[in-house]
Amino acid sequence: MLHLASDTDAAWLPRAWASIDEVLLDHAHCEKKAAGAAIKLLFSYPHHRFLQEPLAELAREELAHFQAILARLEARGVRYATLKPSPYGMALHALVRRDEPDRLLDVLLISALIEARSCERFQILADGLPDAALADLYRDLLASEARHHGLYLELAGELVSRAVRDARLAELARTEAEIVARPCEWVRLHAG
Amino acid sequence: MLHLASDTDAAWLPRAWASIDEVLLDHAHCEKKAAGAAIKLLFSYPHHRFLQEPLAELAREELAHFQAILARLEARGVRYATLKPSPYGMALHALVRRDEPDRLLDVLLISALIEARSCERFQILADGLPDAALADLYRDLLASEARHHGLYLELAGELVSRAVRDARLAELARTEAEIVARPCEWVRLHAG
Repeated sequence: MLHLASDTDAAWLPRAWASIDEVLLDHAHCEKKAAGAAIKLLFSYPHHRFLQEPLAELAREELAHFQAILARLEARGVRYATLKPSPYGMALHALVRRDEPDRLLDVLLISALIEARSCERFQILADGLPDAALADLYRDLLASEARHHGLYLELAGELVSRAVRDARLAELARTEAEIVARPCEWVRLHAG
Repeated sequence: MLHLASDTDAAWLPRAWASIDEVLLDHAHCEKKAAGAAIKLLFSYPHHRFLQEPLAELAREELAHFQAILARLEARGVRYATLKPSPYGMALHALVRRDEPDRLLDVLLISALIEARSCERFQILADGLPDAALADLYRDLLASEARHHGLYLELAGELVSRAVRDARLAELARTEAEIVARPCEWVRLHAG
C-alpha cells in the first residue's frame, strides 16, 4: 500500500545499526524538514483551502516526532548538531515540474513517497534492531508515516483525477527507487 | 508583565468589531506566521540546542491555534484567503541587527513583543466583544500568548546577560509602540 517501486536492500539494516546514533540524528533533521515542508505549502498555497487543516495537523505531528527524537538523542548522550543530509531529498525535488498544477502535484506525490520510504525503513528498524527500546520507538512511529503517505495521496487526488495522479505517482516511484539505491558515503534514513 | 511601551487606543476595539471577520482572517495568518517563524529558527540555529525543544512546542501550539481559527472562519462562512498584512511585522523585522548574537537576540525579542501585543489585544477582545463565543475564544488564547512572550524572553536570556537583554527589549518596545500606532488603512490585529 506504500506504492514504492523497490524494497530496501538487506544490507541497509546492519549498516544503520552500526551507526544508529547518526541515523537518529538524521531522523531528527528529517522530522524537522517534514514539518517545514508542510508549513511551506501552507504559505505557498493559501488559496487551496483543502490543504490548510490537514497539513497543519501533519506538521504538528512531525514536530512532536522531532521532539521525541531529540529526547532520545539526549538520553543517549548524542549531541544535536547539523549533519550532512543524504542527496535523496534534493534529487527528488529536482523532479518537480514548473507549472501548476503539476508543480503542487509533484510536491505532494514526492512527500507521499518520502513518507512511504520512511515507513518501509521504520518497519525494518522495528523488526530488526537489537535494541528493544529503539525498535519500539520505530514501531510507534511507522503508523503515522503510513497515514501521512495516505494523506498526501488524498490531497493529490483533490487536485487532479485519480488516473493522472496514479500515473505520475508510478513514474516518480520508479525514480525514487533509483535515487534511494544510489551509493552514499554516509548511512542515512533515505540512503542506500 | 508584557513589557509593552504603550496601551492600545480605545478606538481599536470598535474598529475591530466592525470588521471582525477580517480580523479573524488576519489572525489565522498571524498564527501561521508565528509557527513559520519558530520553525525558521530551528533551521537557522541547529547549533543552539536550547532553542529546539521549546520552539518546536511553541510552533505546535501556533498550528493548533491556526486550526482553531480556520474552524471558526468556516463556521462563520468566511472564506480563507490571502489578506494584505499590516506593515507591523515587516517594520519590526527591519530592526533586526546583522551580526550574531545581536541578530538572534533581536529576532527573539521581536517575537516576544509580537506575542505581547497579541496578548494585550486578545484581552481587549475577550473583555469587549459583544459576541460571547468570540470573546471566549480570545480568553482561551490569551494565556498562551503570554506564555510565549515569557518563553521568548527566557530564550533571549540564554543568549546574553539579563541586563543586555532587558536594555534591548526596552529599546525595541519603544519602537514597537510607535509602529503599532501608525495609521493603517485596514483593521488588523497588529495595526492601529
